[in-house]
Amino acid sequence: MNSTSSSSPLRIVIIGGVAGGASAAARARRVNAHAEIIVLEKGPYISFANCGLPYHIGGDIAKRESLLVATPELFQQRFRIEIRTLQEATAIDRNQKSVSVKNHATGETYSLPYDKLVIATGSEPLRPAFYPTQAPNAFQLWTLPDLDRVMSYLNSHAVKHVTVVGAGFVGLETVEQLHRRGVAVDLLERAPQVLGQLDREMAMFVHNELTRHGIKVRVNAELTKFEFDGDRIVALELADGSKLETDMVLIGAGVRPRVELAQAAGIELGTRGVKVNEFMQTNDPNIYAVGDIAEYTHRVTGLPQLLPLAGPANRSGRVAGAHAACGKSEPMGTVLGTAIVRVFELTAACTGFSERLCKLNKIACRSVIIQAAHHASYFPGAKNLTLKLIYAPDSGKILGASAIGAEGVDKRMDVIATAMQFDGTVYDLAEVDLAYAPPYGSAKDPVHMAAFAACNDLDEWPQIVEPDFNLDGYQVVDVRTAKERETLPCVGSIGIPVDEIATRWQELDKTRPTVVVCHSGKRAHVAACWLKGLGFQDVKNLSGGMSIRKLLTPPQS
Amino acid sequence: MNSTSSSSPLRIVIIGGVAGGASAAARARRVNAHAEIIVLEKGPYISFANCGLPYHIGGDIAKRESLLVATPELFQQRFRIEIRTLQEATAIDRNQKSVSVKNHATGETYSLPYDKLVIATGSEPLRPAFYPTQAPNAFQLWTLPDLDRVMSYLNSHAVKHVTVVGAGFVGLETVEQLHRRGVAVDLLERAPQVLGQLDREMAMFVHNELTRHGIKVRVNAELTKFEFDGDRIVALELADGSKLETDMVLIGAGVRPRVELAQAAGIELGTRGVKVNEFMQTNDPNIYAVGDIAEYTHRVTGLPQLLPLAGPANRSGRVAGAHAACGKSEPMGTVLGTAIVRVFELTAACTGFSERLCKLNKIACRSVIIQAAHHASYFPGAKNLTLKLIYAPDSGKILGASAIGAEGVDKRMDVIATAMQFDGTVYDLAEVDLAYAPPYGSAKDPVHMAAFAACNDLDEWPQIVEPDFNLDGYQVVDVRTAKERETLPCVGSIGIPVDEIATRWQELDKTRPTVVVCHSGKRAHVAACWLKGLGFQDVKNLSGGMSIRKLLTPPQS
Repeated sequence: MNSTSSSSPLRIVIIGGVAGGASAAARARRVNAHAEIIVLEKGPYISFANCGLPYHIGGDIAKRESLLVATPELFQQRFRIEIRTLQEATAIDRNQKSVSVKNHATGETYSLPYDKLVIATGSEPLRPAFYPTQAPNAFQLWTLPDLDRVMSYLNSHAVKHVTVVGAGFVGLETVEQLHRRGVAVDLLERAPQVLGQLDREMAMFVHNELTRHGIKVRVNAELTKFEFDGDRIVALELADGSKLETDMVLIGAGVRPRVELAQAAGIELGTRGVKVNEFMQTNDPNIYAVGDIAEYTHRVTGLPQLLPLAGPANRSGRVAGAHAACGKSEPMGTVLGTAIVRVFELTAACTGFSERLCKLNKIACRSVIIQAAHHASYFPGAKNLTLKLIYAPDSGKILGASAIGAEGVDKRMDVIATAMQFDGTVYDLAEVDLAYAPPYGSAKDPVHMAAFAACNDLDEWPQIVEPDFNLDGYQVVDVRTAKERETLPCVGSIGIPVDEIATRWQELDKTRPTVVVCHSGKRAHVAACWLKGLGFQDVKNLSGGMSIRKLLTPPQS
Repeated sequence: MNSTSSSSPLRIVIIGGVAGGASAAARARRVNAHAEIIVLEKGPYISFANCGLPYHIGGDIAKRESLLVATPELFQQRFRIEIRTLQEATAIDRNQKSVSVKNHATGETYSLPYDKLVIATGSEPLRPAFYPTQAPNAFQLWTLPDLDRVMSYLNSHAVKHVTVVGAGFVGLETVEQLHRRGVAVDLLERAPQVLGQLDREMAMFVHNELTRHGIKVRVNAELTKFEFDGDRIVALELADGSKLETDMVLIGAGVRPRVELAQAAGIELGTRGVKVNEFMQTNDPNIYAVGDIAEYTHRVTGLPQLLPLAGPANRSGRVAGAHAACGKSEPMGTVLGTAIVRVFELTAACTGFSERLCKLNKIACRSVIIQAAHHASYFPGAKNLTLKLIYAPDSGKILGASAIGAEGVDKRMDVIATAMQFDGTVYDLAEVDLAYAPPYGSAKDPVHMAAFAACNDLDEWPQIVEPDFNLDGYQVVDVRTAKERETLPCVGSIGIPVDEIATRWQELDKTRPTVVVCHSGKRAHVAACWLKGLGFQDVKNLSGGMSIRKLLTPPQS
């Protein structure tokens, strides 16, 4: 590089060339034309589309080359950044300010001095302790070489059945793509539900969508043993003793941060990842940690937290790259863990904390679930959208949300995530001025409807009770039609259709604690308002109605 | 109604049964089971889908019945709200607290006492002073009877050509639907551009999309005269002397609030609409004004402003309905004027203030335009999205935004509108934690890209200059490829492809004020960073690049 500076340039070494690392390198160059920037990547590729990997399996992303987002040549030519692939950082000497590097292509090792060091070693997939590394038909899916192995096996073997272990985001994307190839799939999940980031009733939509497409979903399914024919896995054994024959196994059961390199160099860790400040600096101010190994600050708790997602990885890389290169940067800000996945015709998304996570963290919360059309219901193509909003009982501050539907799920999640970025309340959310025309939304958007429901709950007009609320001892008023009641009974309830409540309320006991139910909670709200207004002392609305309750309880007869 | 109260119930009279009025009625009932609620609607329908009307013309909404969102029967049965259609409020006696009503069905008049009154008289379309009311082929499109007239004429006449006057939201929706019917359309707009809510370069995308579909768009076109054959319009004359033969005319040139009733009763007006407080109360605390006649508080200016949109109409109705019925409510909050329209394969949307509106209001602003894929570019189906962000030069506070594209426009606008609700800055926007998976977005979403560009501009690393910036006297560096330069030349520029800047910068004069240009501004940003970093004293980036500049300037040869 033609430097105009006479002194030797600042050298920034970046360990890891995917997401956070690549982002740090590009940003460093933009703010410092003179720095020498070197990226060490132990794998053969930099900056590949990790989030796109599953989509190549089923052909959604037809060409493998599409997954190579940026090449070493682009980095070299446009940014004068030196990319050293197949070169692994094996140790960091903080006193000497140098990195020991092993070149896997040549076998040689060398020492690389740095002025500033950015560690972006990322995560690696978790695998059972008894994972058979040698099995030709056991796979993980985290890197491009991982994908190459999967594709090569699928293309050269008569694979009729695959077992996917782990029903998280990557697991679900993989299941969908395998199904697209015409392969039968069993999905094993150790937890009692798929997609642990969602509360159970929301996850049930995903569960049912998988089942509807012929995926055999096994929850509470703990893999205990592989059975082999030679090296090849031929069956799996589960903790309940059941056995599952399969042609291929794909493990997608979460990831762990690769912190060993940082830890060995005496970099301070937090609970599980590397402890960093707002500029992604570690306890050594010349060393930054970004991406999956760094502990971001979670907006809901204010506490440091690992979050292996591409968005925060890129942002943290940007922050560290700028700060390493010129000593200043915008701070990293907080994270919410906003995430989204397509599961056949449905989209599931979440942001912030689920109700379950709130409870685990002893954060007081309340929640509502609403169902609404994703755009004006009178405009053709309106699809049902289910939205859950979780909020603080005192302030109404939004703690999290999740949504499920065929269309418009991403938009609602992004709106709520944006409101959360500003510590917004459900009252704020009720007021957001969203874009409305019939093909896009409703004058009262699902976001508003959820916010209204939450405001009603907080104002106790009326309060809602959770979908699996124990109705024993309550006067339960079912305001659905006779036909709806027949199709999906609400045992022990008194049936008064919503339009008859105002004339037939005397049939009820005003003094008894009462819960009103309908299909989705909307008519029940109207009826509950009537009863409250007519002097009933304790009236509540079943959140989400029978359509949600049925997902949580076995059918009643 | 069976009232448990012994005193005579509160009577709430609502004038106008569409959007705001219907919303007020339903909300009033929810918070007050005892009130007597009467809605006076001078037209034959309540609560119809005003925003859906244009979509019936071309058959997108196939059935007229779909436009009837709620019937008087529903209001009666479910909410015990009395709907009096074809009954017009002709005067308000504030001393007597009564409304004079004319029943258009029977011809009789009567006086209706109220305790609380909600005025929701809405808007009416603006028409030229010389509008021929008697012409059988001149139409407006504001109510369901208006639509019925249009449909009846289209279905019974051989209409081959329609002239739509006014290129605002409703005008554009109407044009699209007429085109769907196979009718040739001329679109006349008095202003120098279509869709005045957008800045000119953004509106040009819409203009070009209309033209691409064979719509003849005439801007700066002032209608001065109609020509008749009997009652029937056969041609139009424009201010420039040109004449346009046509079979039918549809006027959609804006609306005015129907404030006469309120004004005659001594209700205080603001600049053009009714002055209200945060609970939509007028100067008479027993009288509320909601919807298109009420002046909402605009978030950007903090000033009262009319805004004839369905979202705020519904929200203001909700607020007034609750407050009238029980004396308390959440406040109305502010409005942003977020709006959206589909124009053939494109969607155009905006929120807050445009750059032009900022200038008109003497609000200091800066802006950036970026172009990015609406989801991961490596995932099939990625469409280009153009996003303009307008912000304060001192604080970076977001003042407005607009977006154009085939997909994902609504989402980005809603995210920015939500951030604006909290007085968010471009720095805040750069940090929002949005939902990312390849089918939905990018790790760096277009919203982030726009925010990054704005942050760079504010940090002067480098500053941007507006798309139509006068480049005379500047050293202009074009970093596109030779082929791109040939296709769309940037006259007087020096061509150095971005990847050669770091080695060829000595060909340039460091001391001259410099503007870097490329296709969209992205490569120019990289190159401008190089030049700044290499000691160039004054380097700027052309916002939006040549792809936007070409929309604002005639082609250069």
